Amino acid sequence: MAKDLTTRAENYSQWYQDLVIKADLAENSAVRGCMVIKPYGYAIWEKMQAELDRMFKETGHVNAYFPLFIPKSFFSREADHVEGFAKECAVVTHYRLKNDEQNGGVTVDPDAKLEEELIVRPTSETIIWNTYKNWIQSYRDLPILINQWANVVRWEMRTRLFLRTAEFLWQEGHTAHATREEAVEETEKILNVYADFAENFMALPVVKGLKTETERFAGALETYSIEALMQDGKALQSGTSHFLGQNFAKAFDVKFANKEGVEEFVWATSWGVSTRLMGALIMAHSDDNGLVLPPKLAPYQVVIVPIYRKEEQLSAISKEVDKIISALKAIGISVKYDNSDNKKPGWKFAEYELKGVPVRLAIGPRDLENGTVEVARRDTLEKNVVSLEGIDGYIQNLLDEIQNNIYQKALDFRKTNTVKVDSYDEFKEVLKNKGGFVLAHWDGTSETEEKIKAETKATIRCIPFDYEEEEGKCIYSGKPSKRRVLFAQAY
Amino acid sequence: MAKDLTTRAENYSQWYQDLVIKADLAENSAVRGCMVIKPYGYAIWEKMQAELDRMFKETGHVNAYFPLFIPKSFFSREADHVEGFAKECAVVTHYRLKNDEQNGGVTVDPDAKLEEELIVRPTSETIIWNTYKNWIQSYRDLPILINQWANVVRWEMRTRLFLRTAEFLWQEGHTAHATREEAVEETEKILNVYADFAENFMALPVVKGLKTETERFAGALETYSIEALMQDGKALQSGTSHFLGQNFAKAFDVKFANKEGVEEFVWATSWGVSTRLMGALIMAHSDDNGLVLPPKLAPYQVVIVPIYRKEEQLSAISKEVDKIISALKAIGISVKYDNSDNKKPGWKFAEYELKGVPVRLAIGPRDLENGTVEVARRDTLEKNVVSLEGIDGYIQNLLDEIQNNIYQKALDFRKTNTVKVDSYDEFKEVLKNKGGFVLAHWDGTSETEEKIKAETKATIRCIPFDYEEEEGKCIYSGKPSKRRVLFAQAY
Repeated sequence: MAKDLTTRAENYSQWYQDLVIKADLAENSAVRGCMVIKPYGYAIWEKMQAELDRMFKETGHVNAYFPLFIPKSFFSREADHVEGFAKECAVVTHYRLKNDEQNGGVTVDPDAKLEEELIVRPTSETIIWNTYKNWIQSYRDLPILINQWANVVRWEMRTRLFLRTAEFLWQEGHTAHATREEAVEETEKILNVYADFAENFMALPVVKGLKTETERFAGALETYSIEALMQDGKALQSGTSHFLGQNFAKAFDVKFANKEGVEEFVWATSWGVSTRLMGALIMAHSDDNGLVLPPKLAPYQVVIVPIYRKEEQLSAISKEVDKIISALKAIGISVKYDNSDNKKPGWKFAEYELKGVPVRLAIGPRDLENGTVEVARRDTLEKNVVSLEGIDGYIQNLLDEIQNNIYQKALDFRKTNTVKVDSYDEFKEVLKNKGGFVLAHWDGTSETEEKIKAETKATIRCIPFDYEEEEGKCIYSGKPSKRRVLFAQAY
Repeated sequence: MAKDLTTRAENYSQWYQDLVIKADLAENSAVRGCMVIKPYGYAIWEKMQAELDRMFKETGHVNAYFPLFIPKSFFSREADHVEGFAKECAVVTHYRLKNDEQNGGVTVDPDAKLEEELIVRPTSETIIWNTYKNWIQSYRDLPILINQWANVVRWEMRTRLFLRTAEFLWQEGHTAHATREEAVEETEKILNVYADFAENFMALPVVKGLKTETERFAGALETYSIEALMQDGKALQSGTSHFLGQNFAKAFDVKFANKEGVEEFVWATSWGVSTRLMGALIMAHSDDNGLVLPPKLAPYQVVIVPIYRKEEQLSAISKEVDKIISALKAIGISVKYDNSDNKKPGWKFAEYELKGVPVRLAIGPRDLENGTVEVARRDTLEKNVVSLEGIDGYIQNLLDEIQNNIYQKALDFRKTNTVKVDSYDEFKEVLKNKGGFVLAHWDGTSETEEKIKAETKATIRCIPFDYEEEEGKCIYSGKPSKRRVLFAQAY
């Protein structure tokens, strides 16, 4: 077990916190609720960004950048948006400091008060739709398919690294369309991009579905989400895609002339994933030894540790290692060679286990004699002695196998922890003893949903897309229901 | 001439403003001083980012992310830093809005006042060195070679798109070293990376040198910069690299135990380039027809325009174009095919000239018969009819030639507009009539420098690295001087 890592069984929440810190992913900063993302954590985020950015571009989107600040009055323009949002946020009231003659240091200059306060963006629908107003006149100006990579701030009272922080990094897509159908299609397209990314890169199985009215984004007509299951049986909402209808177009008066020359309001979507995905990645796969990273997102996929006593041995090993590195790099595999002389191999083994490097190679004098290398895989902790000949192909296959295995393991876990229940007693018992996803009938009312939440802390994560119609009775009210919805306690 | 673009001769400043707007690069937002970077402008910035990021990583740097907000008190810790900086900035005083019962909308909740105000980062030395304190104990923790891509805010009173905006995007490197020599070496290394990037990607010749004390970054022992010359004879500082000595380490008490176990303060550098580079790129190369982009940074390097009357002609052309696109993409050349039917070829030609696309291909029915295509290059506006056979290789060479030609043109311009003067009268005359870089002797005092600035608006851009020692007399005071320094009026 890695040094001082709390086990999951002991205290899952503490295990997560320990892991984020000890694996050098992130830490709390001097500013309440704001984190520092450390280089190793940021390298994973960069890999996520690169893949998502490629996927967005392949589906016709372009990037742009809108202001960090939003005039306060903009938030009042869309009624639902301001009700459900925007209250807990950072407010800029002044634009200058001055020397503090009495106490030393600097103080806020009272003469430099803004006429209208500026809000640090918690999300950018308002400033973007205010901008789109000038960009859109005719159907020929549509669609607009823009994404932005940015930081946003929501003044959260209880924060947890990556999962809930006052400042976080994200991407937010904001698209404008001539028809309802096209906007709905876009909302779905992006949900599929998110699901594809989660499953094929993060190795994280997700349930795609529709949010209930209660859980919908403030200002949206429909919110679609992907929901993942963590090892403690709690759900984590991992990405949302919103069909905004014409709400923001109406709020900011954005109209276009259609082919017949008639003016209509523009249709909108918005969608985002954030550094919260880092939390999902960590919690879904890691174990009591540390991180387990899917090879496709690992900052380096292979680490090589030399085992030696004498300097001559090291130089002979390093010669062989150079060849291995060249062969691996040639087929696009990233490698780190840790030949630092101030740490013992055992320490290094534990360190790279903690950091979740998918494959570790250890090579010593006897390996050189035999033309072999010891290969350890992080996901199963299995070790094998393997011939150096064809090692590149062997590792390429192994990385694929690890990627698949991590996904399969998470999928199996989800299967085991998804149950259908048909009574409220059973529902409460499952949530109390086991957690996980619970599929149950619901009468479709916010009232029932809220009562269940108050009594069990479980919320409807989504109305899943790929479950079949089935007649049944709401577990709470007994009223008729046509399909099961997905309940869970959630992050 | 492109539609309604002011000419450079008429009004250079208006030409720039027109060009940024009409070429769809950026625009002013609803928030004073903050710009919207539009997709075409952002695509250029993304290309800049990608190359710089690669260069930073190749020189051993990693990315990380630090908070947007900095506690007010941090700015007072480094005395020079607070004096020279940080006064004009965005101040967050509250963290919540509430419904305005009287006037409708939302208002700032007076109960949600922060105990200590937070400053939106104008630069991150203080928060980063406060963090490094916990990361550095021993020489084994050094060096730290971190870069951050981020937004920053400086409350500028007079703003101009890209050149000076309240919010801008940049990268800021912050490194920590065990010795002065190593920190100085890092400062120089990064200056060379910046110069390499400017010259080989932006096609922008730059002068590398040292800033005088007056122009130094607040808190630095030395500031190095690269200085470029714009077409109106003004200089534009395009990147700075600061040797910070132990100032920030002392301010934030960051010490390390050296190999002998003795505690020392850590040595620091910081360095940055910003979206200001976009301004330099635009101003250095563009002409009265619009943007001229170096091929290495153009969002698309080639645009293809079909010339046709009938639909059958278009489909025959498109078939040929598909082949051209495949051939070009195969060798890494980016292409846009504009077969939109609602604009005439002449309109498209003007549009892509305005947008600075390096190469334009026009292909019509007669070209199909002859197996040819018309190739127009943006930099010289020359057109040639070229055989379709081997068109990929032809264009690859042409793009290289354009990249070199743009650089050479800027270099020639700089040569023509760099003069040595030996009297103050001559100095004033050159600045008044011609502008440009002026190499003159200076007595080394801030007093003289400030008087010259007050009288001529010219500042010492830098003390260039690669000019020879030469005995002379200060043009202003007549006192002895050992070398010429570079004067100019600047952006």
